[in-house]
Amino acid sequence: MKVVVIGGVAAGPKTASRIRRLCDDAEVTVVEKGEFLSYAGCGLPYYISGMVKDQKELMATPVGTVRDSVFFRNVKDVQVMNRTEATAIDRENKTVAIRKEDGETQQLAYDKLVLATGASSFIPPIPGVGLKNIFNLKDIHDADAIKERLAEHKALNAVIVGGGLIGVEVAEAFHEMGCRITVVEFLPHILPMMDPEMATLVEGHFEAKGVKIQTGTKVTEFVGTDKVEKVITDQGEFPADLVIMAVGIRPATKLAEESGLKIGPTRAIAVNDQMQTSDPDIFAVGDCAEKKNIVTGKPCYVPLGSTANKEGRVAANAICGVNDAFPGVLGSAICKIFDFTVARTGLGEKEARDAGYDVVTCLAPSPDKPHFMPTAKPLFLKLIADRTTRKFLGMQATGSGEADRRIDIAATALSAGMTVDQLAHLDLSYAPPFSPAVDNILVAANILRNKIDGFMEGVTPTEVHAMLEEGQDFTFLDVRSPEEVEQMRIEGTVSIPLGAVRSRMAELDKTKPVVAFCKISLRGYEAALILKQAGFTDVKVMDGGILMWPFEKIVK
Amino acid sequence: MKVVVIGGVAAGPKTASRIRRLCDDAEVTVVEKGEFLSYAGCGLPYYISGMVKDQKELMATPVGTVRDSVFFRNVKDVQVMNRTEATAIDRENKTVAIRKEDGETQQLAYDKLVLATGASSFIPPIPGVGLKNIFNLKDIHDADAIKERLAEHKALNAVIVGGGLIGVEVAEAFHEMGCRITVVEFLPHILPMMDPEMATLVEGHFEAKGVKIQTGTKVTEFVGTDKVEKVITDQGEFPADLVIMAVGIRPATKLAEESGLKIGPTRAIAVNDQMQTSDPDIFAVGDCAEKKNIVTGKPCYVPLGSTANKEGRVAANAICGVNDAFPGVLGSAICKIFDFTVARTGLGEKEARDAGYDVVTCLAPSPDKPHFMPTAKPLFLKLIADRTTRKFLGMQATGSGEADRRIDIAATALSAGMTVDQLAHLDLSYAPPFSPAVDNILVAANILRNKIDGFMEGVTPTEVHAMLEEGQDFTFLDVRSPEEVEQMRIEGTVSIPLGAVRSRMAELDKTKPVVAFCKISLRGYEAALILKQAGFTDVKVMDGGILMWPFEKIVK
Repeated sequence: MKVVVIGGVAAGPKTASRIRRLCDDAEVTVVEKGEFLSYAGCGLPYYISGMVKDQKELMATPVGTVRDSVFFRNVKDVQVMNRTEATAIDRENKTVAIRKEDGETQQLAYDKLVLATGASSFIPPIPGVGLKNIFNLKDIHDADAIKERLAEHKALNAVIVGGGLIGVEVAEAFHEMGCRITVVEFLPHILPMMDPEMATLVEGHFEAKGVKIQTGTKVTEFVGTDKVEKVITDQGEFPADLVIMAVGIRPATKLAEESGLKIGPTRAIAVNDQMQTSDPDIFAVGDCAEKKNIVTGKPCYVPLGSTANKEGRVAANAICGVNDAFPGVLGSAICKIFDFTVARTGLGEKEARDAGYDVVTCLAPSPDKPHFMPTAKPLFLKLIADRTTRKFLGMQATGSGEADRRIDIAATALSAGMTVDQLAHLDLSYAPPFSPAVDNILVAANILRNKIDGFMEGVTPTEVHAMLEEGQDFTFLDVRSPEEVEQMRIEGTVSIPLGAVRSRMAELDKTKPVVAFCKISLRGYEAALILKQAGFTDVKVMDGGILMWPFEKIVK
Repeated sequence: MKVVVIGGVAAGPKTASRIRRLCDDAEVTVVEKGEFLSYAGCGLPYYISGMVKDQKELMATPVGTVRDSVFFRNVKDVQVMNRTEATAIDRENKTVAIRKEDGETQQLAYDKLVLATGASSFIPPIPGVGLKNIFNLKDIHDADAIKERLAEHKALNAVIVGGGLIGVEVAEAFHEMGCRITVVEFLPHILPMMDPEMATLVEGHFEAKGVKIQTGTKVTEFVGTDKVEKVITDQGEFPADLVIMAVGIRPATKLAEESGLKIGPTRAIAVNDQMQTSDPDIFAVGDCAEKKNIVTGKPCYVPLGSTANKEGRVAANAICGVNDAFPGVLGSAICKIFDFTVARTGLGEKEARDAGYDVVTCLAPSPDKPHFMPTAKPLFLKLIADRTTRKFLGMQATGSGEADRRIDIAATALSAGMTVDQLAHLDLSYAPPFSPAVDNILVAANILRNKIDGFMEGVTPTEVHAMLEEGQDFTFLDVRSPEEVEQMRIEGTVSIPLGAVRSRMAELDKTKPVVAFCKISLRGYEAALILKQAGFTDVKVMDGGILMWPFEKIVK
């Protein structure tokens, strides 16, 4: 069996090696346009920041062997042709046309073909985008060029166009290098994978670190003579010694399209759960292949190295006749931004509404360990569920607390199709150095259960803010202690500490709607129950308490 | 509706508060023998070490309100009678007899009764066990007494009898206080919740920190005049200025037994999934109640604060007519021991065999982040599955890497009844500061799949050691690099680096069995495949590589 794999960075070598391991008689050839094989593209921001010292580390096995052609031949018995481009696929005759760097062309026959052509950075056609010192960050050559520019002198003005995952990772790396950074994002908030109230928390953290976040801003021109000097936007100009374009990547589907393979609605190559394309002898894996969202069952495009690896294994198994199927992805994503972790999995609130669910959400801010542990740090969770089926749909997390663990618990629960009730009953590991006795994610699941079961009516900070703006007549009840209120409060509130709500409720008008809250709205919930039991009819709890109030606060 | 709750530490107050929140007409009384309410017993080791400064923090809400009777009356509308003992239950007349500290007795009528009587430390009847400075650690009074003893002078000789969770947590706290520590454990290894090869790694870490671990040792007498001076065992004597008895706890079931409630096979109070005892009007929650193991469906006894909380909520829901059911536990447990985390969930290998599964296991040691990240730390995983159904059964983790996240992923997967294939396909969040592109737990799941599918035959270090001891004729093949071999090796091995296996395999006898390994046995696996494809018939891979070889090594 002759197997040709096009693409040697992530999914390609994985597929090739596994095919060779499983099939004694397979002859496997990998064709790679570039020089380097099997390198960890996700490590590039850490190579720029200097955390990863040597680019070889990104291309080596854990014991330091560089994965070059010799390695693949000796260890994996896979032939690798790098600096070689696949130029066309002849599906009828089952051959791939290739052209080597020196111009030599050749036809490679295949029984099975694997496309692992990856993705390419999208460079929008903005005037001046071709100026020097405007980079994108797709491979090691880009990273080296950026490092060189950073080494020229300190305290550069760096503008990052695009506030997605790569943009924010680069922003942190540049901050480490002493740059003055502006992140320009076209959308109303950075990190479009996150819901607005979560992204707002991250923007606040960036700004606290001195990074300028310029959202809702469109770049109209890059200006400079030879080298870029400033970035012109519809919201003003920004000086720029260095620009990173990080507006997104697009699946590399040219070969697939030209050979008539089916392209999916996300513009990536359509595949089934065996990673098989519309041609049964051609497979597609990694960033060029379309994914399926596990929650909705619909196509999506989430290019990640973690997925590429799994898909490579599934394709190899399918080619070698080993039973396997790829279930799809949840859009799980995570990044570190200074002291914050930002993570998400499953559906966001808008995605869930668009998919037709009867959406119920909650915000749960809490320390990530018992409050008596000095190592406890704040963690902000948002959970999304379906009211009718009680099905858990998605989660987002940020803060300096441990978001990674909670997101992976959520991803596992989503893969299993759990309800919020099942989520709330998980037997997670517990000891004070790691988590509260009732873990943050279980607390959040219980808030959702209380909402679905009608014990708690929530209202989001944004809704409350609108009620205030509209001048609606309601009691905005802060049940924190006088000391807490003195430190920080919201304009227009009435303060009665929780412990005094029973004795002082005569001060409140039973006929007016009440919105109760506290620091995180746990006491707000208790106050609402007390008032409801006393005959107040319209009592809501403000999600997330004052900790997640993204509007103006009066601070002592 | 009159509800009486016996026990005011963890599950009791939780049940009481939730009942009061759900039912307008409930009159709820909590009876607690001791002085303190709702305190975090799990925090006691950290109070002893001084990490938690004030005992009030263990009894306060996150905003600092101490949960005393006044708090429960004002905030929760729950009446609490502390320093009050429940002495008998009259199930026919539905009353509880109570006796206050001053000797006054009373009968409390109930419609529903909740037993949250907790557990008590088991003190074995060893001669001298009543000497001064022999403590157990069940409540704040014990912790204060221990702190007082530690404050007397530095560098005490402390002997901890029992190497379970509490024993090891106390050992770390004592080490912080400057004590010389010996942990005496009757069983062949500490932490009986862990499989032997995992516990061995933890023992090594303890010893590296200067803590003496004395396993397979029975205490026969405590000797001293008035105060304890030494501990006599069947393996010698140990000087002791301070002894902690941590041999385990027993459910407090006296009241339940005397009133004829059904006691389960684990000696805890039998309950259904509503936490209802054999009397439909009596519920039991927390450390006095029996649990169900989610994997086996069989009764078990795993007393933990995290479980107590969930059970309290379920009991309250049942009493108030809210639909809910407690699915049981996985025996998830975790503790921090110096730089190591030790954690487990689901079934251990022996438990799985005893339950009749066709057990397949793997050991997977790996960095917990990409090898190029300087923050990467070693993590040792053991996974247990059923070969026939491919069902994932349990996981254990240790090392200085992030074990907590992986254990909670495993616990979630076990709750969902996932197969190893589903586990291997999880869309976990990925970025280099958090995990490798293929997370350790997915790597381990794939090793299990390779074993089940017949691509890899594993052999445990213990089995290989036995083969060596018996003088069996086999090739013990180390495929690490010459540099790695020079640093550390196992006696009796043949060295051929992986990259040279294809060219040098003529040096090996095809007719002899081969056991291949490397640092973690990933290269060992590749070598085995190469040899099998070349016609070697009996090729095994040693699980976990030299990193998890617990026997003698030759170190440079």
